[in-house]
Amino acid sequence: MNRSVYLIIAESAIETIPNEIKNHPAIMNDARRRKLPPEVLLLDRSFHHAAMLRLLDQEKRGRPDIVYHILLDVTNTPIFKSGALKLVFHTYNNLVIWVKEGLRPPRSYYRYENLMVQLFSKGSVENRLLAIDKLDFGNLIKQIKPDRIIGFSRVAPYKSLREVVADSDKYDSCSFVVGGFPKGHFNATTLASIDDLYSIDEFPMDASLVVNRLVYELENQQRVAI
Amino acid sequence: MNRSVYLIIAESAIETIPNEIKNHPAIMNDARRRKLPPEVLLLDRSFHHAAMLRLLDQEKRGRPDIVYHILLDVTNTPIFKSGALKLVFHTYNNLVIWVKEGLRPPRSYYRYENLMVQLFSKGSVENRLLAIDKLDFGNLIKQIKPDRIIGFSRVAPYKSLREVVADSDKYDSCSFVVGGFPKGHFNATTLASIDDLYSIDEFPMDASLVVNRLVYELENQQRVAI
Repeated sequence: MNRSVYLIIAESAIETIPNEIKNHPAIMNDARRRKLPPEVLLLDRSFHHAAMLRLLDQEKRGRPDIVYHILLDVTNTPIFKSGALKLVFHTYNNLVIWVKEGLRPPRSYYRYENLMVQLFSKGSVENRLLAIDKLDFGNLIKQIKPDRIIGFSRVAPYKSLREVVADSDKYDSCSFVVGGFPKGHFNATTLASIDDLYSIDEFPMDASLVVNRLVYELENQQRVAI
Repeated sequence: MNRSVYLIIAESAIETIPNEIKNHPAIMNDARRRKLPPEVLLLDRSFHHAAMLRLLDQEKRGRPDIVYHILLDVTNTPIFKSGALKLVFHTYNNLVIWVKEGLRPPRSYYRYENLMVQLFSKGSVENRLLAIDKLDFGNLIKQIKPDRIIGFSRVAPYKSLREVVADSDKYDSCSFVVGGFPKGHFNATTLASIDDLYSIDEFPMDASLVVNRLVYELENQQRVAI
């Protein structure tokens, strides 16, 4: 592969408190406890479950821990550190978080939360190693310009991950898309951009598990190529 | 493989506050904030850094997030859910945490902390899906009785992870050992129990990264065997 491979985490369940629920008692209490205005908090099902019940697509939202888990895992891998794999989070609300090599995410969940709160309000943190843009999935793809976009979904034909990665080698540049949400499926806009969609196990898998295995296979392939 | 494979996370950096620092201001403040007695809190470098400076082996301790990360990752895998892979945490203080299949760890770090505080004080939680015993590494091995114990360390000869797992197939039962600490190496007692020690990359890797890749290779091997 000549150009960087992009790993895109699509429709990631990270966002600040939506306007329509910012006055809900569950949100107000949490804001008071954290000494922050409600609208800058991260929407989090662990704390805001009661307030989330009336949200559209609520089962896909409010899980910033998924982003954290993937951020920790991917930034720790040799292929990401080498620059050969790029990591991007697209969010439910059509924002895009760019993750630059060199980023060392905080090891504490508390610090991660604070960092994300700052990222959403300032637009970038950590010397721009994390930066956020307003960009929907289609425009993100236009910006990256991959030759092929390969996605993973439980509701798709089975193909072993090893084969998926091996077969992707024929393209000059590939982007891989994994859903960054806890339940449900890609929306129609995301699906419209994906060329090939595969399931890699008969059982549902957490996003982080798919990502870990995918990144490992990409690294193995890269080693073969060298 | 006929018998279960054990994944042992050795010398894991999880413990309650050691007696010798429980009166340190950094600990007392945290205890007050959490409304808990200092001695039941989890030692955590994110909050107790100043108090930890005088602890023996301080660079290997106070990282309960490492246990959480591995717990989330492994309990989510098909091979663990099927019962073919067992997960055990041995801790720095020679306790052993048994993780039973069926455990669904909390998705929130806050809830995980509370669960671990309870585990250390009660001895078991979640219907005994998590249980703790006083057991050193040697006696843990005597109890599991594997035919071969394979460990991973940066200071060991290189062998690709895929080869390590493929070659392990000749034993009736294997235990794999990964260090559950952020820095440093296995202590002499742990090393004495390990039959084969390998490094699987030229760069240091987080424990969770080694674990993720190992579990994936074990699953692939199992699929071949079926």
